[in-house]
Amino acid sequence: MKVTFLLFLSCLFLFACQTKPQKKQIHYSYALIIHGGAGSMDTVNLKETDQIAYKAALDTALQKGISTLASGKSSLDAVCQVIEYLENNPMFNAGRGAVFTHEGKNELDASIMSGLDLSAGAVAGVRDVKNPILLARKIMDNSKHVMLSGKGASEFARENGLEMADSSWFFTEKSYNNLIKAIDNEKLSGLTTPPLPDYKYGTVGCVALDQGGNLAAGTSTGGMTNKQYGRIGDSPIIGAGTYANNKTCGVSATGHGEFFIRYTVAHDISALMEYKGMGVEEAANEVINNKLTPVDGSGGVVCLDKNGNYAMVFNTSGMFRAYGNSEGQKIIRIFK
Amino acid sequence: MKVTFLLFLSCLFLFACQTKPQKKQIHYSYALIIHGGAGSMDTVNLKETDQIAYKAALDTALQKGISTLASGKSSLDAVCQVIEYLENNPMFNAGRGAVFTHEGKNELDASIMSGLDLSAGAVAGVRDVKNPILLARKIMDNSKHVMLSGKGASEFARENGLEMADSSWFFTEKSYNNLIKAIDNEKLSGLTTPPLPDYKYGTVGCVALDQGGNLAAGTSTGGMTNKQYGRIGDSPIIGAGTYANNKTCGVSATGHGEFFIRYTVAHDISALMEYKGMGVEEAANEVINNKLTPVDGSGGVVCLDKNGNYAMVFNTSGMFRAYGNSEGQKIIRIFK
Repeated sequence: MKVTFLLFLSCLFLFACQTKPQKKQIHYSYALIIHGGAGSMDTVNLKETDQIAYKAALDTALQKGISTLASGKSSLDAVCQVIEYLENNPMFNAGRGAVFTHEGKNELDASIMSGLDLSAGAVAGVRDVKNPILLARKIMDNSKHVMLSGKGASEFARENGLEMADSSWFFTEKSYNNLIKAIDNEKLSGLTTPPLPDYKYGTVGCVALDQGGNLAAGTSTGGMTNKQYGRIGDSPIIGAGTYANNKTCGVSATGHGEFFIRYTVAHDISALMEYKGMGVEEAANEVINNKLTPVDGSGGVVCLDKNGNYAMVFNTSGMFRAYGNSEGQKIIRIFK
Repeated sequence: MKVTFLLFLSCLFLFACQTKPQKKQIHYSYALIIHGGAGSMDTVNLKETDQIAYKAALDTALQKGISTLASGKSSLDAVCQVIEYLENNPMFNAGRGAVFTHEGKNELDASIMSGLDLSAGAVAGVRDVKNPILLARKIMDNSKHVMLSGKGASEFARENGLEMADSSWFFTEKSYNNLIKAIDNEKLSGLTTPPLPDYKYGTVGCVALDQGGNLAAGTSTGGMTNKQYGRIGDSPIIGAGTYANNKTCGVSATGHGEFFIRYTVAHDISALMEYKGMGVEEAANEVINNKLTPVDGSGGVVCLDKNGNYAMVFNTSGMFRAYGNSEGQKIIRIFK
């Protein structure tokens, strides 16, 4: 009898090992999440009037994306519409508000990916395309390539009828002053591109789930203030700054791009979900807080899983972010 | 008694589910693997004299790498030495033998990664650096960045004392004739960049494991013949064409780069090992044969796991490849 009981206990134990507790999952018919960059933000370096202005911009972007999804359009359309709006808004480091390179130019990077078939488009280092996210989409839809760069990418944009813009469109006093500050700082410290104490990674990004169950993710940025040597960050790198896969999740990242490339952040979150069965929040936490934080890789991600559940994870003091879904839930936040 | 027996059987069954059969793993104190590109190769389009010449070049490269590792130097040093040799050899589409862009230029891409700390360096679209792999290494060692591109990358190379080369160094009649053929083919078919029937992805790559247990991987390429618009393939993309992580494996890829970017091939192999416990051969097979083949993504990978065991997996008819280890084992092959 004792043996029977022990065997019964063993069975129970092994059975318990097999079945992980399942987190309750809600399925939303559509959902959308946005970031407008992460960084060291607090109530001192981000005044209340600025906070209100950023929240209003995020709200407008969110409403645009949510109505697009509500009308039955695709997640790719929603991502493009949201990012186009953020690129045209000079408050963010993407498109119009892009930061300046060391040479006083604006070099723009963007990428987009469809979770349906893993098709993707990316652009690095264009100077004269008004909306890099629309160029990334055009590369995905109209070319055999995934990633185009520099003058060649501009040529492709012109051939495909995209709106071009000259350098005056991208000029903002705030970005130019930040370049002057960064160069002064560099001279004082003798280091190239030292981090500014109030550094904000003002990249923008969006992930959407549409009514057809398709995920899409996109990211757009002006890169780092005072960047040199044709530096490419994580935003146009599929698997680093952007990833989408209907099996798992969509991810858009913002932060110190070099770390996001080395840790293949966006794909790693998806891989943890696909291969280890993690939920989206657990997977994003694992990569941002357990892998990047220990090596001082700062930044964050916004993610949606295939059911429209979100994760907004960052190891900086703030990240401009917003989330909405088909149930009318709405979140707009800046600080932790 | 019947119940006891049933419980005992259940226990046995559950226990069997828990323990996967373990593949016998050998630990080599050092090992190195090389590819010189994959593609549609057969005894018709690759004459016996060419086969002998390619095998001799792979053998020389392998010997260089193996002696470097035998002398106790790092896997990063071995990878650089092997790829530098292959770049200087005009038989391969990297460095000196690079293919031509649509405009008749050579635009070179390369990347390198250390499995020890996931540090990495990459370069895209340089035209005047003799050995792009050495530039990728310099970016990893001497800059705060991971990826530099175009003229900016050349400027960084000059400032860091790398050997520059003018366009005559990269000119080979074979590559130039291939461009003419590709342009003629394009005119006939009315398509841009249609695949040539005997297309070879002549990228080069190397993965090494050193006596300190550190993996490193590197890849270098001239990209696709007749490429346009500043196209960037998978070779300089960390996680796509190159990846190394001491926890799992090192990978270098060659093939239709767009698919390797979209499927994050190199990192996916590592993720399958880390998160699903696959061996290196099983993981490489899963990605190349079960993910890429069904979508017509052609190419292959060479990989080493942390013990120096190899995988050489490709879905084309051939891949120039070589492997050696501390036990004196040596493999040099072209066809399946």
